[in-house]
Amino acid sequence: MPKLDPTTTEFREAGHRLVDWIGDYFDNIDRYPVLSRVQPGDVEKQFAAAASETGKPYDALLAEFEEKILPGITHWNHPSFFAYFSITGSQAGILGELLSAAINANGMLWKTSPSLTELETLALRWVRDALGLPSDWFGIINDTASINVFLALAAARENLGLNIRGEGMTGRELPPLRVYLSEHTHSSAEKGALALGFGQKNVVKIACDDNLRMRPEVLADAIANDRANGMIPCAIVATVGTTSSAAVDPIRAIGEIASREKIWYHIDASYAGSAMICPEYRVHWDGFELADSLIFNPHKWLFTPIDCSVLFTRKPNVLRETFSLVPEYLTTTDTAEINYMDYGLQLGRRFRALKLWLVLEHYGLERLRNVIREQIGFAKRLADELQMRDDIELIAPQMFSVVVFRKKGTDEENAALLERMNASGRLFVSHTKLRGRYGIRVALGNGATEWRHVQQILDLL
Amino acid sequence: MPKLDPTTTEFREAGHRLVDWIGDYFDNIDRYPVLSRVQPGDVEKQFAAAASETGKPYDALLAEFEEKILPGITHWNHPSFFAYFSITGSQAGILGELLSAAINANGMLWKTSPSLTELETLALRWVRDALGLPSDWFGIINDTASINVFLALAAARENLGLNIRGEGMTGRELPPLRVYLSEHTHSSAEKGALALGFGQKNVVKIACDDNLRMRPEVLADAIANDRANGMIPCAIVATVGTTSSAAVDPIRAIGEIASREKIWYHIDASYAGSAMICPEYRVHWDGFELADSLIFNPHKWLFTPIDCSVLFTRKPNVLRETFSLVPEYLTTTDTAEINYMDYGLQLGRRFRALKLWLVLEHYGLERLRNVIREQIGFAKRLADELQMRDDIELIAPQMFSVVVFRKKGTDEENAALLERMNASGRLFVSHTKLRGRYGIRVALGNGATEWRHVQQILDLL
Repeated sequence: MPKLDPTTTEFREAGHRLVDWIGDYFDNIDRYPVLSRVQPGDVEKQFAAAASETGKPYDALLAEFEEKILPGITHWNHPSFFAYFSITGSQAGILGELLSAAINANGMLWKTSPSLTELETLALRWVRDALGLPSDWFGIINDTASINVFLALAAARENLGLNIRGEGMTGRELPPLRVYLSEHTHSSAEKGALALGFGQKNVVKIACDDNLRMRPEVLADAIANDRANGMIPCAIVATVGTTSSAAVDPIRAIGEIASREKIWYHIDASYAGSAMICPEYRVHWDGFELADSLIFNPHKWLFTPIDCSVLFTRKPNVLRETFSLVPEYLTTTDTAEINYMDYGLQLGRRFRALKLWLVLEHYGLERLRNVIREQIGFAKRLADELQMRDDIELIAPQMFSVVVFRKKGTDEENAALLERMNASGRLFVSHTKLRGRYGIRVALGNGATEWRHVQQILDLL
Repeated sequence: MPKLDPTTTEFREAGHRLVDWIGDYFDNIDRYPVLSRVQPGDVEKQFAAAASETGKPYDALLAEFEEKILPGITHWNHPSFFAYFSITGSQAGILGELLSAAINANGMLWKTSPSLTELETLALRWVRDALGLPSDWFGIINDTASINVFLALAAARENLGLNIRGEGMTGRELPPLRVYLSEHTHSSAEKGALALGFGQKNVVKIACDDNLRMRPEVLADAIANDRANGMIPCAIVATVGTTSSAAVDPIRAIGEIASREKIWYHIDASYAGSAMICPEYRVHWDGFELADSLIFNPHKWLFTPIDCSVLFTRKPNVLRETFSLVPEYLTTTDTAEINYMDYGLQLGRRFRALKLWLVLEHYGLERLRNVIREQIGFAKRLADELQMRDDIELIAPQMFSVVVFRKKGTDEENAALLERMNASGRLFVSHTKLRGRYGIRVALGNGATEWRHVQQILDLL
């Protein structure tokens, strides 16, 4: 009976071919339409009804990939991918993922691969210092910001001292527990709150000012009002770089309310956090040290392939008390200080620190800063050029690497314009609504983007 | 100003070197100690205090990896890794991860890479058919079984019809909501229930019989008792292949109780589900069609690198109603049938289907079946040989690829024996406790394992 992989010969051949294919892909990335042009079902219908019984050589499968799968890819790697927040990869990040997949370790315990745990601790210490965060903050890598905000809100819930872990939320008299967001907070915070049993009616969306920033005085009133009605304020989520417009909530003013009211303060810097490796942007999150927890995603704007989201907290013990649950088969006798499985929902943990380490060390902080500065410069230049045109209106202040605008005309006309721009295949922009008005939204973040790519937006208008 | 990656030259060189390094690593995997021998802090202390400012070439970083990081790896790839459940990778799976990292797409919406969504649908249809599951079950890939059991329990909670999503769990009169497990259900189910606000006291651990299987009559009594006390039974979690001993709960008998009582029935087949690609083992999950949801992990025993866990459900609409939350910036105008972000907590979705597709198609079902059959055969042979020895006792019925035994003597003596076996570097086994007695636990699952590797267990005893 053969082993699954009797030799490494086929792997080596296919691996070399694949490395070259990837090199060619990046060399020619400009030639692909950014947004895939297939119709629903087009990809799936090309394949057989069942998986192969006898197997196929790698060559045949790579050919199938190119022929059947690649046309259905929307190219997040394309330098003219300006939609959502680009999950910016990099060549170093790809090599990190390759090595991580080969090692295939699970870092649930320190013991199950000490390097996985210790490189995570190390990389997050480096990153914490590079961002200028307090040196006593604890960090953990998880897959997504969705998970990390969920963990933060779960810790906030446990931090109320009501023993929700032990006693649960039902079968006892508990008042409504309230979570405060703004109307521009990312949907993952609300989704996390729903999953945690807060209830959608207890997710309070605080109004924003004309610059799309949460209004602290409205927040303070809402909290006072809720307390007067016997409710329990549990958590406040503020954002540094909202999804719709990269707006920044008044971090210090909200933090002071949170401190005074003793409410868990979570900061979502998933996107804009990466910019804080450049000291000159840190003014935007002045007051961050008031946070109980903070997220930033290296897979959003620090050139690390999806997935890699970092949760920092100054209350790791609360996180631990919320989530630690150690069955007999996972007990250990070593003296490791950290078993990361104790600080989250997921037991299985990929070796994500490896790609982050490679990205930081290969490019170096100086180059990473310069690429981010350049992208912010491109966004400012785009905003300036758009503002010089009579037929264009910026509908949000330009912040970080995001620009939101609309052309004179109706929402429908702008939506049609966006469809036409994307149908060109030359770029991909997405949309949002701000104060009820449709906006075309451009977000830069790809390490290969040059001004000529951004210029195409102007050309297509 | 340079682009982040000005050319692909360095990437190609480093990629080729890395592919060969990985080939050599697998060719020589037998020579590494399975369990890392470093002490806490040994890895981290070798590195500088801060990330590089100016960057380093790949060569230097790969050398650092070998010198500083590799000694701190516990080799999950080693054919004598018998601890936990081996997260079995494969060479095809590694190539799949490489390609997925290069494409770096986020499959939150169909539109954001149609192939990601459609290949996931396709691969899960193939897998569903290969396992003999009902053809109308819906599947979704997530990172871990921890997340998938959490999603299943969240759906179960919403399925009660109490509008917990909208109204929340507090601030209203709700009775305790009960979740039924066995004492051998994986800890992730309990952790999920705690996160969902059920409360630890409402996680009911049903007693097991002498073969470590949940006792249906005890379950029925517990449910009746809870109802009589005004509580609401919400979900039952049964296991096909428990972590401690690979025991199988009476799936049909429990399912009949769940159906009669209208309680969400979740089956955890994270580990043993993969064996069901061999029709002869399906007798073990007779009655699975009564499940509302079922998990199996290709990253546990289907040779797919971590992470890849599949949730099947016959009630996708409940999952969708529990989790769908679409902000303006994620609305679409296309006619895609599935946007997978609607069915889970996480917005960001890696292209995990690609590695699963490559594993299925490269090896073919026939070879995958034969490798699993061989591993089960090795486990049976190991159990037989152990049973012939007077000084060894099997403390659980041998099931699938797991064997749990102890040597004559105290728990402490067995724990010391386990430490000595692992310290040899020749293999890695873990432990559990069954009915209060310490057991040495062997789990096979590595595609490179031959009988000579298993034989070492006998040699070391």
